[in-house]
Amino acid sequence: MQLILLSGGSGKRLWPLSNDARSKQFLPFLEREDGERESMLQRVVRQLDAAGLADNITIATNIAQKDIIVNQLGENVRVVTEPERRDTFPAIALAVSYLSIEKKCGDDEVVVIMPCDPYTESGYFEAVKDMVSVAQRNVAELVLMGITPTYPSEKFGYVVPESHDTSRKDYYRVERFTEKPDVRKAEELLAEGAFWNGGVFAFRIGYMMDIVRRYVRSDSFEDTRARYQEFPKISFDYEVAEKAASVAVVPFAGSWKDLGTWNALTDELKCNVIGNAVMGGHCRNTHIINELQYPIFADGLEDVVVAASPDGILVCGKEHTEHIKKSVENLTHRPMYEVRRWGTYRVLDDTVYPDGHHALTKSITLERGRNISYQIHHHRSETWTFVQGEGLFAFDGKVRRVTAGETVVIPVEHYHAIKAVTELTFIEVQTGHPLIEEDIERFEWQWPE
Amino acid sequence: MQLILLSGGSGKRLWPLSNDARSKQFLPFLEREDGERESMLQRVVRQLDAAGLADNITIATNIAQKDIIVNQLGENVRVVTEPERRDTFPAIALAVSYLSIEKKCGDDEVVVIMPCDPYTESGYFEAVKDMVSVAQRNVAELVLMGITPTYPSEKFGYVVPESHDTSRKDYYRVERFTEKPDVRKAEELLAEGAFWNGGVFAFRIGYMMDIVRRYVRSDSFEDTRARYQEFPKISFDYEVAEKAASVAVVPFAGSWKDLGTWNALTDELKCNVIGNAVMGGHCRNTHIINELQYPIFADGLEDVVVAASPDGILVCGKEHTEHIKKSVENLTHRPMYEVRRWGTYRVLDDTVYPDGHHALTKSITLERGRNISYQIHHHRSETWTFVQGEGLFAFDGKVRRVTAGETVVIPVEHYHAIKAVTELTFIEVQTGHPLIEEDIERFEWQWPE
Repeated sequence: MQLILLSGGSGKRLWPLSNDARSKQFLPFLEREDGERESMLQRVVRQLDAAGLADNITIATNIAQKDIIVNQLGENVRVVTEPERRDTFPAIALAVSYLSIEKKCGDDEVVVIMPCDPYTESGYFEAVKDMVSVAQRNVAELVLMGITPTYPSEKFGYVVPESHDTSRKDYYRVERFTEKPDVRKAEELLAEGAFWNGGVFAFRIGYMMDIVRRYVRSDSFEDTRARYQEFPKISFDYEVAEKAASVAVVPFAGSWKDLGTWNALTDELKCNVIGNAVMGGHCRNTHIINELQYPIFADGLEDVVVAASPDGILVCGKEHTEHIKKSVENLTHRPMYEVRRWGTYRVLDDTVYPDGHHALTKSITLERGRNISYQIHHHRSETWTFVQGEGLFAFDGKVRRVTAGETVVIPVEHYHAIKAVTELTFIEVQTGHPLIEEDIERFEWQWPE
Repeated sequence: MQLILLSGGSGKRLWPLSNDARSKQFLPFLEREDGERESMLQRVVRQLDAAGLADNITIATNIAQKDIIVNQLGENVRVVTEPERRDTFPAIALAVSYLSIEKKCGDDEVVVIMPCDPYTESGYFEAVKDMVSVAQRNVAELVLMGITPTYPSEKFGYVVPESHDTSRKDYYRVERFTEKPDVRKAEELLAEGAFWNGGVFAFRIGYMMDIVRRYVRSDSFEDTRARYQEFPKISFDYEVAEKAASVAVVPFAGSWKDLGTWNALTDELKCNVIGNAVMGGHCRNTHIINELQYPIFADGLEDVVVAASPDGILVCGKEHTEHIKKSVENLTHRPMYEVRRWGTYRVLDDTVYPDGHHALTKSITLERGRNISYQIHHHRSETWTFVQGEGLFAFDGKVRRVTAGETVVIPVEHYHAIKAVTELTFIEVQTGHPLIEEDIERFEWQWPE
């Protein structure tokens, strides 16, 4: 049995803490029972592990998220990245091709597809096991999880079971799917015994590969990936679920939430204050999450969320947090904080001066043993002042040791790389024009032993 | 006639925009009729000028405020600084000594003492002129302004006129002063026709110098200043007003406010958003002032003030802003933004790392033609990367031209100074131990012509 976790989303709904590189599933604010904090992704993987489902996890994602996934789950995680963003069908087609062609999984092996960020309980993972069992028994081409609705929601697609299928089994046969309905229609669906479509699917690899080969027929995964554009931009629901000859649904009636708005997320936080903040005595149902160095003081607030990061500062009545995505779309022009494979950076200052000069100042931290690739910039020079730790600095073919207190200047067109011997932090000041992340050319480099 | 403006206050009541160096009177948020913004101090000086009272202004303040006063009022402003903070009597004694000894004002010249930050109208300055006239006519030793109360406030001292003194003159004789009363007592005082004591006084220089000489008798102002500790720590009200043999009060019945809380200040702002911020459509009576680079988005708030600066971020229901001073006392350990005589600096980052290293990163802007003094540091080294403009950099006795894009490194114990040819900005990274502003030794330096 194989498991594919879908990790996508541009994540502006939890602005300013989420951005294009740090979608909501990566926010490290959920509290475990031992008091440690974890992200939604880490929570789901931990729950899969507890359910005995973590042996063969593949994460299907885009290149922007690969670094943070490795950072959160470790170097050994299996990640398949799309060459470009399309839709859920191409993403799943690519990941299944990887399992079939690269990992040589057999056509009869069952694959479970699931989102990487449901906030749910252990019963959910028991339902996943039931789905695998139903798929293995070949009851239907496609098995999906049906969440027992708790109210007539307009936000979900619905799965309607066959009305005469009332035998007590661990699944129902599916009669039809419906789009997101209005409330009246949703009430009718509830009366029919319909389920929410939770986006969890199980099928045999061979079934999916037959569909894949309609678009890309190849014996090489690299080739399949290179021809990614030949997959249509369409969702898995449209391309596969709605066209399947037979579909079964396995019900799950437990707690299941999407922590995709500040209102929903703060409901699940055990702590009202995370980060450098103080709350006065006159706040009610108010949450503060502060990732900035600047202290926050809040008082006299009711049902408000305050969230601050280098991307911006949100102060919002909780009932209005559902709509911020559109409002903040153009507030930030570049990510101000990123988790990379080698560590993290924070933008400290990004100013275009009246005389036209542009300068960008970052604080960059490399984890012990990690390195930034050997590279040159064509348009910017960089000044690095080391402020913590010890590293190896490669410059135009030579390597020397650097420590806190030292400064190096890297002019335009000079080769450079840095490797952390201990955890290493430096302040980088970029000057030049244009100052964009894309002004980088990478080269091979062999660090000395 | 001479005028002494008292400028003091540690200013945490308008945290995070005010700090020890930038008290509330310096916040540049009041809108003039021409749309330009000005501070309370600049507004008062402009109003004094319009009333013809600006010819002889002396500002009595402490050394921490001198730079920002010069920055806001220009190089020609007359400033007398206390060597240490004591109370209003010593501060006024020192400023009057300056006028008497250094400026050789005659004993009969009238001096008006007033705070530098009342938010008031032109009638207030007409009342000041009346006070000068009453003092010149020698009606009483001391003349003060009585603000006609609008409600039984517990926040002000009161001045009670003689009850039989009902003749229609431009002043009343004062029977007694009272401390800040409770509400019931304040109601009684209002029934008696008492005034609020607005802290504006007029007297002849000779009268005050007689009191000064009880503590410090000297023919030299420098000597008087050196002996500042010999003045008792006491308020002008206690030491002078309450002991005066005869006091007259000149009434003022117009609009007069202390914009000393966020609630009061935002009431007078014409604009709900100042700085990089966006307000959604569901806010009511909410104000945002943002001095940070990070954008703010606010929605769903009612009667809330959001204020952000490098010192911190305040999010507070307006009715609770009166009490923030105590709450934020220990939130900020050092000023993160300062206006200096030569320009401004902002702290971008201030981090003590797990390995014990400490680094401080600042963005420093010098105004055209200004310079930082020739200096050495005993404990820190500095890296300056110039990001805007052109300057002269003095290092160990030699001067060279620097421009945007260049980096200089200043190790511990090396002499250095910088002068702005055009407006000049550089990013400074300090490393060493300890990193404190006081680690500085200044020397004379002659810039080449």
